[in-house]
Amino acid sequence: MRHNFGAGPCILPQEVFKQASAAVLDFKDGLSILEISHRSPEFDAVVEETVKLVKELLNVPSGYSVLLLQGGASLQFSMVPQNLLPEGGTAAYLDSGVWASKAIKEVKHFGKANVVASSKDANYTFIPKDYVIPQDSAYFHYTSNNTIYGTELFDLPVTKVPVVCDMSSDIMSREIDVTKYDIIYAGAQKNIGPAGLTVVIIKDEILGKTGRSIPSMLDYKSHIDGGSMYNTPPVFSIYTAMLNLRWLKSKGGVAEMEKENIAKAKALYTEIDRNPLFKGTCAVEDRSRMNICFVTEDPELEKPFAKYADENGFEGLKGHRSVGGFRASMYNALPITSVHALIDLMQSFEEKHKK
Amino acid sequence: MRHNFGAGPCILPQEVFKQASAAVLDFKDGLSILEISHRSPEFDAVVEETVKLVKELLNVPSGYSVLLLQGGASLQFSMVPQNLLPEGGTAAYLDSGVWASKAIKEVKHFGKANVVASSKDANYTFIPKDYVIPQDSAYFHYTSNNTIYGTELFDLPVTKVPVVCDMSSDIMSREIDVTKYDIIYAGAQKNIGPAGLTVVIIKDEILGKTGRSIPSMLDYKSHIDGGSMYNTPPVFSIYTAMLNLRWLKSKGGVAEMEKENIAKAKALYTEIDRNPLFKGTCAVEDRSRMNICFVTEDPELEKPFAKYADENGFEGLKGHRSVGGFRASMYNALPITSVHALIDLMQSFEEKHKK
Ligand SMILES: Cc1ncc(COP(=O)(O)O)c(C=O)c1O
Ligand SMILES: Cc1ncc(COP(=O)(O)O)c(C=O)c1O
Ligand SMILES: [Mg+2]
Ligand SMILES: [Mg+2]
Ligand SMILES: [Mg+2]
Ligand SMILES: [Mg+2]
Repeated sequence: MRHNFGAGPCILPQEVFKQASAAVLDFKDGLSILEISHRSPEFDAVVEETVKLVKELLNVPSGYSVLLLQGGASLQFSMVPQNLLPEGGTAAYLDSGVWASKAIKEVKHFGKANVVASSKDANYTFIPKDYVIPQDSAYFHYTSNNTIYGTELFDLPVTKVPVVCDMSSDIMSREIDVTKYDIIYAGAQKNIGPAGLTVVIIKDEILGKTGRSIPSMLDYKSHIDGGSMYNTPPVFSIYTAMLNLRWLKSKGGVAEMEKENIAKAKALYTEIDRNPLFKGTCAVEDRSRMNICFVTEDPELEKPFAKYADENGFEGLKGHRSVGGFRASMYNALPITSVHALIDLMQSFEEKHKK
Repeated sequence: MRHNFGAGPCILPQEVFKQASAAVLDFKDGLSILEISHRSPEFDAVVEETVKLVKELLNVPSGYSVLLLQGGASLQFSMVPQNLLPEGGTAAYLDSGVWASKAIKEVKHFGKANVVASSKDANYTFIPKDYVIPQDSAYFHYTSNNTIYGTELFDLPVTKVPVVCDMSSDIMSREIDVTKYDIIYAGAQKNIGPAGLTVVIIKDEILGKTGRSIPSMLDYKSHIDGGSMYNTPPVFSIYTAMLNLRWLKSKGGVAEMEKENIAKAKALYTEIDRNPLFKGTCAVEDRSRMNICFVTEDPELEKPFAKYADENGFEGLKGHRSVGGFRASMYNALPITSVHALIDLMQSFEEKHKK
């Protein structure tokens, strides 16, 4: 068993793997989950339970729909403006990382993006603050957790403009107040389930105001009307997401996860700060709990530590090429024992390299 | 074990289920296929082999790209005109079923659809013939197999216009000449693999001629440039598709499948025609090999036969609500033994109901 610190697709609970594996052989009456009709009552029940779990775990109020879609968070980058931005309209975007900037890039097909602030010049090592969101923006878009840089935005900016958030890499990791958002979206492949599924939480009344003609598959309304079965859904990814959300609920839900995630992050950041061989890469006040980026103080030690980690059963610790160094992604399913193992590794590496 | 005649998601080979199930537990070094990075060399190899198998099995010539996408065939309904239709342009469509008509519906967001022929008034019981494709059409679109109605178009209309084909429900079931097509697309969930994956085969030179600004995720070029990894792909669906295509190759490839599919279809149609209790629902010359639709001569016998089939271990035989009666979907992975079992069932049902 390796310690999987990968950034996503990422570790899920071992019991979820076991249950998903079993369902590939026999979901009902000897039929595989891969060969059942998405229109069967059994799969209807899966979709229903998945939606119910998302609503329950995030406390989604009435008036919101939960959609199970395909295309990843990347398809949302264009679906959001296509559904919310009137012709000639402008939307406000916070540029806090590469994913944010990719979302910004897609707006031009539908209107204008007003980048209210950016930390690009500092290689996205902090989250911009003190910006103004013009009141006539069609919406304000931000990324709650910048997966690549390891920064996280915990306090939602106060604004009267509708808020859209890419929560791909920190959804379900901490409590949020859904009433403050108009659209929340997330690629499933971190805290929700396997790749191939995108979860969208949408305030119904925000839709249908642009007068645009939207292709059916790109229109949130089709998917709301179709109960996320406008067309054949990604059956296995939804089923496995359901298993994972059941696990999350059994562990005490998002509030309990948040406590654990705080503990996990605190333990690792403490070691990074204490250990003279390592240092964090981003602003302390913006440190993410999900993706912890660090480098060796001595660049010469980067490769040796990478090798040492690999030899000792650590997976996925390599930092994104735009940051370098290391990134420990610590999603819900990563056990705290893996974090302690990493800390031990850093300490024994320190011992080895004592002058 | 039930005989799974479902229309899709549908039966895949038992050995594919076994291998996919095992990979959910351990794909490499004890890591699940669900938790590995899509940027890992191991998954790169999976994508590469999947693309290679599609090319090999369908004899895809150079100058074509094979894309592994999300969104189902339904997203292709709008991606095709968005990528191929110039502003104000017209594309020719053959209306041979509900899927064709849904594809037609999406064209209006980008230009005009010229429906060259339709069998809608006959509830799509035959495939229209003797139509004219205007030479100035941007492309001609048709559905090779009408899943709901059980009709199949074996002879590609001769035209100089670029040809786009929705092969969702008969791809890999018979040999085709890819050089005759500019785009072939198919939701994977019949002959390719599990739901959540769409395969697109595209002649590269057809692209980039409309001058449109296309959102990245909807632009075939992004996916060609990204090697089907423009964003996180549906990892498990691709992996399982690879396993299934390996199986197909090991069985002798598409030519061998075609022989078997002809034998399977012939056996069942012969019984439908012979058995006085049953009759086919569509034009004999357009009968599909993949989806065989039939009804009971006496409407009173429909429910009893459905019950009898269910009790005897038959799954997914219910016809689509727009046709009624029964539909036996007989994709590649359905063993001929299941077809013989169905024929036996029809014969013993005949015995029981002899006057
Ligand atoms: C914050 C964030 N947004 C968007 C994406 C893109 O997601 P997808 O690959 O599902 O399109 C990612 C991928 O890691 C991400 O971390
Ligand atoms: C011929 C054909 N085209 C398109 C579709 C729609 O596919 P999807 O559900 O993947 O969007 C289907 C679904 O069964 C089909 O049979
Ligand atoms: Mg980022
Ligand atoms: Mg330090
Ligand atoms: Mg049809
Ligand atoms: Mg008969």
